[in-house]
Amino acid sequence: MQSIDDYRDQFVSFLNKFVAKKQPENLYNPINYILQLGGKRLRPVLTLMTADIFGGHFKKALNAALSVEIFHNFSLVHDDIMDDAPLRRGHKTVHEKWDVNTGILSGDAMLIMAYQLFENYEAHVFQDLAKLFSKTALEVCEGQQYDVDFETRNDVTIPEYLKMIEYKTAVLVGAAMKMGAIVAKASTKEQDNIYEFGKNLGIAFQLQDDYLDAFGNPETFGKQVGGDIIENKKTYLYLKAIEFLNDNDKSELETLFSSQPEQVDEKIATTKQLFEASGAAQATKEAIKTYTELAFKNLECLNITEDKKALLKAFGNSLMNRTV
Amino acid sequence: MQSIDDYRDQFVSFLNKFVAKKQPENLYNPINYILQLGGKRLRPVLTLMTADIFGGHFKKALNAALSVEIFHNFSLVHDDIMDDAPLRRGHKTVHEKWDVNTGILSGDAMLIMAYQLFENYEAHVFQDLAKLFSKTALEVCEGQQYDVDFETRNDVTIPEYLKMIEYKTAVLVGAAMKMGAIVAKASTKEQDNIYEFGKNLGIAFQLQDDYLDAFGNPETFGKQVGGDIIENKKTYLYLKAIEFLNDNDKSELETLFSSQPEQVDEKIATTKQLFEASGAAQATKEAIKTYTELAFKNLECLNITEDKKALLKAFGNSLMNRTV
Repeated sequence: MQSIDDYRDQFVSFLNKFVAKKQPENLYNPINYILQLGGKRLRPVLTLMTADIFGGHFKKALNAALSVEIFHNFSLVHDDIMDDAPLRRGHKTVHEKWDVNTGILSGDAMLIMAYQLFENYEAHVFQDLAKLFSKTALEVCEGQQYDVDFETRNDVTIPEYLKMIEYKTAVLVGAAMKMGAIVAKASTKEQDNIYEFGKNLGIAFQLQDDYLDAFGNPETFGKQVGGDIIENKKTYLYLKAIEFLNDNDKSELETLFSSQPEQVDEKIATTKQLFEASGAAQATKEAIKTYTELAFKNLECLNITEDKKALLKAFGNSLMNRTV
Repeated sequence: MQSIDDYRDQFVSFLNKFVAKKQPENLYNPINYILQLGGKRLRPVLTLMTADIFGGHFKKALNAALSVEIFHNFSLVHDDIMDDAPLRRGHKTVHEKWDVNTGILSGDAMLIMAYQLFENYEAHVFQDLAKLFSKTALEVCEGQQYDVDFETRNDVTIPEYLKMIEYKTAVLVGAAMKMGAIVAKASTKEQDNIYEFGKNLGIAFQLQDDYLDAFGNPETFGKQVGGDIIENKKTYLYLKAIEFLNDNDKSELETLFSSQPEQVDEKIATTKQLFEASGAAQATKEAIKTYTELAFKNLECLNITEDKKALLKAFGNSLMNRTV
């Protein structure tokens, strides 16, 4: 087993070798640009680590890990177009640096390249990886569509919201780990367990993102604190507050979330106060804990040594205790 | 063997069974819409026919045929966004009927669904189909990028143009047929031969499209005659004319192709006259013949009965003698 940093370094040097000058450059330059913008490389690291945990060798999982990372970046390129986002990881988004058409076409090529990386595996592994990948990728599209749909709906339920973040974010974390297990030829049961571990951790991670967006430390939180509030995003915090608040306070929150004031400080402060007073903040913390514990339960059934379980648990806890 | 119409009917009824109400409907309704807009279904018919020709059963090739058709429609949805096209097959394009974001996301989902259809085959066939599909799909993206690049270049060569139409259009025809051969478990050599047949026929088909756009019969040609001329498209006709014309006439053509007059009749008439006088029209007809004959040469080496070769040849000739 290696350290997280070692996995990341090995992955990045593999990625850098993959990135090459290909023709037509107006198609491939944007792909190389987004792939080399950095980022935490969380998903590919999970693929490599999982391959090692199940007694494979992480080097055999490099192609699968790169596939996951390219898919993740594909989804960022297309989502950034849809969200009209100017920046990604502190740099211009692809459609800003080039144009929307380039973003569409380069994204399409990335999705195909992600599949091509599975060609480095023998037929049965190839099929298992590609099947899991297709199922996951389609769920990510569905999650993105639900997210768009929710913007104009006022009756989104908590189960609907949880399904949305599961599809949009969590399944890819589960799939990244399951791919490591597939490459290491772990049993189906173990593949499924590690998938559930990753998925539940992914849900906890996204709920924590919702929580930190409002209550994170501005000094260490990577994004603007209160960003979701400014954009009137119906996060878990918001939906729980709407559920818990009395009619008066509920109206106030709904009014706040249909406004777009130039001065945002008061809106953020009032919203946060309603999130806390309603018990929504507390409920969100509990939901994070629930999904983290659910993830750890999935670990118990795994047929791996206790120190490997401890490693996965430590990794999960480090994600959950992050302040960024 | 069945008739072309029979294959098409069988394919369309398979497609109609595939199209189902799925959630979220804002993602799947646009997919169902574009898939049911009609069209000639040329590519999937070729997949089915080829499976029969190599002694498979066309019904086994239905999933591969549907994959090809879904991919083709995916590329139309995304290309129509890039070209800002309002109409497709006489109906609103997806991004016009819904919006650009819907077009992007539904297109992405279609690309994934095209891969999923291969899951109906056993591991080795799955891998062969998916590998061919990825290679082809990436070439189609590259062809589209070259096409975009050519719009702003004044030094496009004939070999570059031929490579562009090969990638953008012809390889998918070749791949559609090769998929039928893969499903029928034809030998690698036969797979490659039928691929070359389809690819060369595809190039001939596209060159004929260029030719008919200027010289087709307005009564029977599906699109507006002179459409490429109005849009200043550097087709094979144009590039050959530029190659053949003297400096004076070349300047005239270049000036015409940097204008966008409201009254297009004179521009079209003058351009056509230059295409004919220069010998470009004749050269295009010869290139169509060359690629058609090249395709027929690929047939000769095939280990199939003469009547099956005759069938493929008749199909090729019917495509080439079309006036639409």
